[in-house]
Amino acid sequence: MPQDAKQPGSNHKTHRVVFQPAGRQGWVPDGITILEAARLLGVEIESICGGRQTCGKCRIIIEEGTFPKLGIRSSREHVTPVTDRERRYAERFGLDLEHGHRLSCAARVQGDLLITVPEESQARKQVIRKAAREMSIKVDPAVRLCYIELERPTLEHPRGEWERAQEELATRFGLDNLTIDITALRDLQAALRKGQRGITCTIWQEREVIRVQPGYHEEAYGLAVDVGTTTVAAYLCDLLSGEVIASEAIMNPQVTYGEDLMSRVSFAMSEVEGLDRMHRAIIEGLNDVADRAARSAGITRQEITDLVLVGNTVMHHVLLGIDPRELGGMPFPAAVHGPLDYKARDLGLSLAPGAMVHVLPIEAGYVGADNVGVILAEEPHKVPPDEIVLIIDVGTNGELLLGNSEHLLCCSSPTGPAFEGAQIVHGMRATPGAIERVRVDPETLEVRFRVIGESRWSDEWTEENPPAEKARGICGSGIIEAVAELFKAGVIDRTGRFVRDCPSPRYRREGNLASFVLAWPHETSTGQEIALHTDDVRAIQLAKAALYSSARILMRRRGVDHVDRVILAGAFGSYIDPEHAMTIGMLPDCDLEHVYAVGNAAGDGARIALLNRDKRLEAARVARQVEFVETAAEPDFQDQFVSAIYLPHMFDEFPHLEHILSKIPNLKAR
Amino acid sequence: MPQDAKQPGSNHKTHRVVFQPAGRQGWVPDGITILEAARLLGVEIESICGGRQTCGKCRIIIEEGTFPKLGIRSSREHVTPVTDRERRYAERFGLDLEHGHRLSCAARVQGDLLITVPEESQARKQVIRKAAREMSIKVDPAVRLCYIELERPTLEHPRGEWERAQEELATRFGLDNLTIDITALRDLQAALRKGQRGITCTIWQEREVIRVQPGYHEEAYGLAVDVGTTTVAAYLCDLLSGEVIASEAIMNPQVTYGEDLMSRVSFAMSEVEGLDRMHRAIIEGLNDVADRAARSAGITRQEITDLVLVGNTVMHHVLLGIDPRELGGMPFPAAVHGPLDYKARDLGLSLAPGAMVHVLPIEAGYVGADNVGVILAEEPHKVPPDEIVLIIDVGTNGELLLGNSEHLLCCSSPTGPAFEGAQIVHGMRATPGAIERVRVDPETLEVRFRVIGESRWSDEWTEENPPAEKARGICGSGIIEAVAELFKAGVIDRTGRFVRDCPSPRYRREGNLASFVLAWPHETSTGQEIALHTDDVRAIQLAKAALYSSARILMRRRGVDHVDRVILAGAFGSYIDPEHAMTIGMLPDCDLEHVYAVGNAAGDGARIALLNRDKRLEAARVARQVEFVETAAEPDFQDQFVSAIYLPHMFDEFPHLEHILSKIPNLKAR
Repeated sequence: MPQDAKQPGSNHKTHRVVFQPAGRQGWVPDGITILEAARLLGVEIESICGGRQTCGKCRIIIEEGTFPKLGIRSSREHVTPVTDRERRYAERFGLDLEHGHRLSCAARVQGDLLITVPEESQARKQVIRKAAREMSIKVDPAVRLCYIELERPTLEHPRGEWERAQEELATRFGLDNLTIDITALRDLQAALRKGQRGITCTIWQEREVIRVQPGYHEEAYGLAVDVGTTTVAAYLCDLLSGEVIASEAIMNPQVTYGEDLMSRVSFAMSEVEGLDRMHRAIIEGLNDVADRAARSAGITRQEITDLVLVGNTVMHHVLLGIDPRELGGMPFPAAVHGPLDYKARDLGLSLAPGAMVHVLPIEAGYVGADNVGVILAEEPHKVPPDEIVLIIDVGTNGELLLGNSEHLLCCSSPTGPAFEGAQIVHGMRATPGAIERVRVDPETLEVRFRVIGESRWSDEWTEENPPAEKARGICGSGIIEAVAELFKAGVIDRTGRFVRDCPSPRYRREGNLASFVLAWPHETSTGQEIALHTDDVRAIQLAKAALYSSARILMRRRGVDHVDRVILAGAFGSYIDPEHAMTIGMLPDCDLEHVYAVGNAAGDGARIALLNRDKRLEAARVARQVEFVETAAEPDFQDQFVSAIYLPHMFDEFPHLEHILSKIPNLKAR
Repeated sequence: MPQDAKQPGSNHKTHRVVFQPAGRQGWVPDGITILEAARLLGVEIESICGGRQTCGKCRIIIEEGTFPKLGIRSSREHVTPVTDRERRYAERFGLDLEHGHRLSCAARVQGDLLITVPEESQARKQVIRKAAREMSIKVDPAVRLCYIELERPTLEHPRGEWERAQEELATRFGLDNLTIDITALRDLQAALRKGQRGITCTIWQEREVIRVQPGYHEEAYGLAVDVGTTTVAAYLCDLLSGEVIASEAIMNPQVTYGEDLMSRVSFAMSEVEGLDRMHRAIIEGLNDVADRAARSAGITRQEITDLVLVGNTVMHHVLLGIDPRELGGMPFPAAVHGPLDYKARDLGLSLAPGAMVHVLPIEAGYVGADNVGVILAEEPHKVPPDEIVLIIDVGTNGELLLGNSEHLLCCSSPTGPAFEGAQIVHGMRATPGAIERVRVDPETLEVRFRVIGESRWSDEWTEENPPAEKARGICGSGIIEAVAELFKAGVIDRTGRFVRDCPSPRYRREGNLASFVLAWPHETSTGQEIALHTDDVRAIQLAKAALYSSARILMRRRGVDHVDRVILAGAFGSYIDPEHAMTIGMLPDCDLEHVYAVGNAAGDGARIALLNRDKRLEAARVARQVEFVETAAEPDFQDQFVSAIYLPHMFDEFPHLEHILSKIPNLKAR
């Protein structure tokens, strides 16, 4: 019989080991540690110290007893005795020695074993993310920590300290062919001195040491940022636990150079150093938001070693320092579509000196990395083939995704800033004092509203108990509701015009222009009326028609005449009431129970890519597969758009709104 | 018979093609270009334009006739006819159409062919380097140029321009998985616009696009720099031809922080921002020397895309921004030994924005990357096993290499700055006016000398025809010669002392101190005598004893009692007369015909690594294999050193100096 060290009965003693819950099992040589056994059998157990009984991350449980199904008898006697170190640090490491808890790097295999790897010791932990659907992210970030201790150099063994570290990282962690960032190399010797030859290396993508710290550390931080045209939202994550430890949002400092994308592009083209100024502005903004997030978590931004960025195509280009001028005209070619990895410092970012930045891919034209973030978060590419999902990311520039695992289409839709309160007479951003909810009594045409910063409706305000905020203007969701409610009440007809005669004292008309008072002077902080005007309705109609017609074109290209689910992404999406939005025809008909908002899905996607490097590959793959549709180039775009200006639409049916539409006077009179 | 497209007789037509001088041959499909055929058969033909008949680099010659030994009949009829483009640019491309010259990317195979690839079309050209031995370097630099033309983007094919370029580079040049430097990415779209969709990419190590230029270019420049303690020497090379197009040298600006290595290390340790100031100084020096070299070649330093640096260990650390303090004490651990590749900008260098820098490996202790450069240039690791070569790099810090292909040893030797004229009463650097040659008549004790800047010896100077430079002091080679000549004349005895009684009017004595006038006041620019003093001789003795004893220790460790060849490297080595050097016992005994100087071999080595990337791998390999000897830690170092203070040595025999030593009065009286 041929000798085989891995088989029982050979000269070399082996034992059978089973790991649960992974279910992996096999024969391992006598005397190796359980950590080594796990590696042999492909079970990933967390370890920062590389088997030095220092980090306590690799805790496992030795099961006791006979397990007939597995054909194994496992016993705590089948491993080497508890070490001094385990005993000393049992409490700190959470080792319940009485119940078979051990450090897998300390206990050596001496017999057959059934081993349980608790959730927190699994190298790829699951973190539950709150979203529309519950979703779990495996925590497997691009950076990891490795603690090593190096021999002291001697005259007999003159080697570079880095070569010593390289060998140790290869031996202990299986990381071969590592390189080292220049900034980490500069810190190496001082760290070795200060850490008494023990250092913690931060390693990026198993390729490069990007940071060296003296002594043992078990903290790693990353930042996920969604760079929106208007808002920059940042999530600071603990890269070991996967948790968000701080969230911050700031205005995009580029707003000074233009409110919407096209004005930014033209600023880059026409102003002296326009690109440079915008690039510096957003980089300073990112440094600033990183700083705020770090401070609110009690760290410094120099401790952030990984950064994931998403943003629409123009933001993507400008933050990389790429001139966006080509994006200003047909066929809108982007400089780069794929994912990018650069040193954060090469963008001018001041995080850890060796920090990396990953920029998610873009899809095409104006469908940018933010939309890829939405894909990662909402996973339309995993929707079963018998279901059609529509995702609308509502912003200054809207992006739409339609389809399922078989085929996904995307497009962008230049909604303009009307949904953000711009181009509206009393429009304002969604800040305290903005009217965000509106109700119109269809009988009396009386109005009640709610403003941001005050939880009661306006009809509950009293002199004894005045509101925290009076109305200062009307924001996007308020405008949508006002239009929808006035339409439902018959004050606005399906063309968007105010009806000729309306008995309400709120109704005003001058020639062809009319308006409807939403808040009386005593209800506003300025003492002036706040009203919805004919031109406001028109602005909302154009914006919603852009979204609706884009959705319709995608549906036609996808060969479907309905959607099963509508997801509203973007912070703004969370404030929109689905019924009102559908009533004005902003969304195609759909069961209202299957229309929901998911908040900043782009930011969620950035966070997912930050926490899991496989998701970065998935993003790149899906971004290449999504088919981009340039809606403006479709022959019937103009017709679609014009029909969609009507409330809710010139032709399309909305069976799911029947309970509302059937009550509107004169609507059927087409 | 199974079908095989590559074999004759199958359905697919194939032809036999032979390339000379490579001698490669094989069957290739009908209709492919000769360039493609060459690639198929592993013959490397130069091409920048990737087969567009644009660069003219891929010229080959179609041989005419029957070649019985090859069993082939080759004919110009066996390729497609001359194209319009070839005819139009025949003169520019050097195409002698009458004699079968063709562009290999234009001519397609239609029959059997014997093809000659002329030297200049071979992808790896040979450049002859002048040195002690003639040596040829294959020109195969780390950066290469690739010209590509991209399709115009359309709405139907929305792809990133970089992805388009990536695909084209893969298709045309076989370069897969390329990344692009952020600075090159920023230039991409503007270059495409300006170059009307044609761009030239500079590609580093077949891995990364580091520069993008509009249109077609065929210039690439690299810089090789030897950063010495005192001098920084730079060679600007044309990376396509391999030629040096400019050489520049400047003083190392760090000289202000200390003359020798140890004072630099202590400056870094003791001064506020000492490392930073020294790092910035050398980086500014490198930017300056790059600028000078570029200007003298008529380019700008922003056109330099590759840089190779060598320097001793301390210089190596400081220029990388690594604190050299650990190098200041036993066991002198270096932060890193292996070769390094970084972005030039990460060191603060301002070359092409995406330029790379390669730093050659160091060996150990004070045997640095400059010595690895010496190895590349002089190739001691290729010396046959029956020969022992000793290489001495003479500088402020001397480095020695001993051995052959079987085993190489190295060590450093702190000679101090005496050889550079420091610590010598009338010492000076080797600049105009320095006495560099000295002759003493053994009979009359009369002296004649030669100064830098004047070709005649001092005894030929006349009032009618005065020298261009009078003597201002004495430099290293002059001091060595003065000591050797006075020793030969019996004025200095073998202990280095001036004899008690000497009849020459040039001889002076005060107590135990004596001196000997080399230049009379009328021969000097200051009107003061220039003399050699007792302490000067002592300084030279200590310096030469350091070198000699180091060589002896290496010889003992290598188990040899003689050397067959001595190579003097370093600019200073070129000025030393081997016979004088051996006479004072600076070198071990050796046939004087086998002692020679090779100039700045470290700089040569840097240049070799710049021109050929395989040499970088070779350097890394050899640097690891050379055994480092810490001479100061050898038990007999002190004894060896003391014995070597004698002229030429207390015990060692110098058979090859017999003709000189035998004539010295009283020498044998030991």
